[in-house]
Amino acid sequence: MTEMLSAAALAQAVHAGRLSPVDVAERCAEAIRAREDEVRAFASLDLPALVAAAGAPELAATPLAGLPVGVKDILDTVDFPTERGSKLFAGHRPTTDAAIVRMAARAGGLIAGKLVTTEFAFMQPSVTRNPRRLTHSPGGSSAGSAAAVAAGMLPITLGTQTGGSIIRPASFCGVTGYKPSFKLLPVLGLKPFAWSLDTIGLFGAHVADVAFAAGALTGRDFSLDEDHPAPRIAVVKTARAHLAAADAHAALDAAAAAAGKAGARVTALDLPDAIEAADEATVAVQGYEASLAFADEWDRHRDALSPTLATYLEGAAAITPERYDAARRTARRARHALADLFAEYDALLTFSVAGEAPEGFATTGSPAFNRLWTLTGGPCLNVTGLTGATGLPIGVQLLGRFGRDRELMQVGRFLERAITAA
Amino acid sequence: MTEMLSAAALAQAVHAGRLSPVDVAERCAEAIRAREDEVRAFASLDLPALVAAAGAPELAATPLAGLPVGVKDILDTVDFPTERGSKLFAGHRPTTDAAIVRMAARAGGLIAGKLVTTEFAFMQPSVTRNPRRLTHSPGGSSAGSAAAVAAGMLPITLGTQTGGSIIRPASFCGVTGYKPSFKLLPVLGLKPFAWSLDTIGLFGAHVADVAFAAGALTGRDFSLDEDHPAPRIAVVKTARAHLAAADAHAALDAAAAAAGKAGARVTALDLPDAIEAADEATVAVQGYEASLAFADEWDRHRDALSPTLATYLEGAAAITPERYDAARRTARRARHALADLFAEYDALLTFSVAGEAPEGFATTGSPAFNRLWTLTGGPCLNVTGLTGATGLPIGVQLLGRFGRDRELMQVGRFLERAITAA
Repeated sequence: MTEMLSAAALAQAVHAGRLSPVDVAERCAEAIRAREDEVRAFASLDLPALVAAAGAPELAATPLAGLPVGVKDILDTVDFPTERGSKLFAGHRPTTDAAIVRMAARAGGLIAGKLVTTEFAFMQPSVTRNPRRLTHSPGGSSAGSAAAVAAGMLPITLGTQTGGSIIRPASFCGVTGYKPSFKLLPVLGLKPFAWSLDTIGLFGAHVADVAFAAGALTGRDFSLDEDHPAPRIAVVKTARAHLAAADAHAALDAAAAAAGKAGARVTALDLPDAIEAADEATVAVQGYEASLAFADEWDRHRDALSPTLATYLEGAAAITPERYDAARRTARRARHALADLFAEYDALLTFSVAGEAPEGFATTGSPAFNRLWTLTGGPCLNVTGLTGATGLPIGVQLLGRFGRDRELMQVGRFLERAITAA
Repeated sequence: MTEMLSAAALAQAVHAGRLSPVDVAERCAEAIRAREDEVRAFASLDLPALVAAAGAPELAATPLAGLPVGVKDILDTVDFPTERGSKLFAGHRPTTDAAIVRMAARAGGLIAGKLVTTEFAFMQPSVTRNPRRLTHSPGGSSAGSAAAVAAGMLPITLGTQTGGSIIRPASFCGVTGYKPSFKLLPVLGLKPFAWSLDTIGLFGAHVADVAFAAGALTGRDFSLDEDHPAPRIAVVKTARAHLAAADAHAALDAAAAAAGKAGARVTALDLPDAIEAADEATVAVQGYEASLAFADEWDRHRDALSPTLATYLEGAAAITPERYDAARRTARRARHALADLFAEYDALLTFSVAGEAPEGFATTGSPAFNRLWTLTGGPCLNVTGLTGATGLPIGVQLLGRFGRDRELMQVGRFLERAITAA
């Protein structure tokens, strides 16, 4: 069994002098040596360099306290190859770090290595396995980022979400996944898939851990109040509720009941049509943008793309600018309608995924419960603590108001504690 | 004296069979051989390859009709070095074309070469000279893009604007510059400076030429109606009017008078405070984002940056996330207030620049009349036809409603004709 590493607790221990950054790096290295062969979370890794870097004298006083940070291999790094899950970029060495990688380094994080992404962060399954049950998918596209945290190998990892690539693997692997408000974390140095959707986010053990990491990385206030008032939560099952398995419904109902028992005001809510309409709009937005984001690969290197991606791009090429522009207008209306809801609710609660992680590696699962929230752009959080029919994790998803990420973390911690207590 | 090349007229001649793409390429090559030594618009160039490529049989039937397109050297190209105006990227060869470069190629444009940018599209002057008077600055940062059109060397060029880097050089060089609605042209493969501001745009001889190019590049309808009704125009001198020289005021007044004489309803308008407040907000937005966009260069290669850029980045590093977030909120309020104005007006008319091109090469001029409109994100157009105290061009700037770029082109052609007729 795996014990996850708490970023917040480790940083606190380093700041207090109870642990050194070298102690933390060695603990990670030990877990990686124990589990990486079977989990396959890393695309590249240099454990001796990590432990050596942890010896730098000033690290313990930094915001990230020298904690090892794993980086999804869709983000550019100078010190590690950046292969983007594609043979087209085998051995590729960028000239420049992604901005978020520099932010992590400036905050005192140590880049531990690159984590497996599906090909260009799309749907073709990767080599990574689910640490909770090795015969099952970890989800995608941030497969390695979720798995490395779930396996206790790293306390903080960076992932990205264009459809459901943070919340889905977080749910499957039983870790906390945080998709911030659109553009809170800069995407410079991310290989784009769809520029209106691509969002960098974080994985950690629990809500306090991603809140700690978000605060340390961005320099913003993500501190959580101990006496935060019980939130007002709207449970939104959405027009896609029929796609969720019975155990996903049970998990969502259990989370809502636990929140209510802990004092939250919990209300069932049907989403306005203006919001539901934007789910379908994601298809045109993502497809049109992907067909331009991969124009070079499509025009010059089509044979090097997986059939999964090539088939997708072929269909996407038929999306007209008119259809795209109409989809963007639909998205804008949905964002306004969603903002209105937050006058009455502190957070929405919905499915993270349709069920437990799929058995085998034929699929990374469906983003059906994620893509609408990526397009509308507010913060999303996968909250852990519940399990499905076969005992694998099933998370529930909290949605916050655009730009109010810290407030969502408050609700997230409330819900996490409520689930644990229930 | 220089005659500019009309993209719309050349494409029409090719589509009608009166000219071949090879004829057009040879005409460009001849102009480039005649003027490039003194203008210095190109960062890289391969005229034999251009003429050879123009011989491909299917080109004449494409939307861009095989017209040569010049690309600002801040955009990635596989076939030409991409040096970004910085010695840090001397000889750099990207693995992938920028999306807009692929769009141009897919539409049947021939990439003629790379055009000089200031260092990373910032303020340090480049080697390019103003084709209208070689002792004067062409402006920046899209120096080569404006100069190549002004010198009659190319019919269409791509530039970028983060502060005023399209409208300013267009005005100084006497060409039509078009900064589209934010993200109309995808920025993938652009070296970022500030991701909320960086905008790709076009230069051409006249309004019909950039409208033609925008339509051909994007597949959207940019056709201009011959019988478009006379527009409602608000003249906004802004709180920075005192920065404009007497001849810039005279040009703006002359443009307004010409529009009125041609039948437009012309009204003087003081901008609401909510809009004016966003001018100062550009400082924090640009600076905060630049300090992350150049994090790698700053952390690793500081000595290779110009003093102009290094000093700027040093100051920018002090901008807190709180100040940045507040500036973004100010920008959002300004965008809403600006949208409200377009209920009553079809376009706003304001200064493009503070005056004629500066003599010498110590400065590229000021973006004081541009940065607010880059941040608010609607389409901007530099309209030609007027001159300043010493006979150099002074453009005027039209501002349109976000997403209504074609409508702005209609007003632009109306104004251009009105100025010519007056």
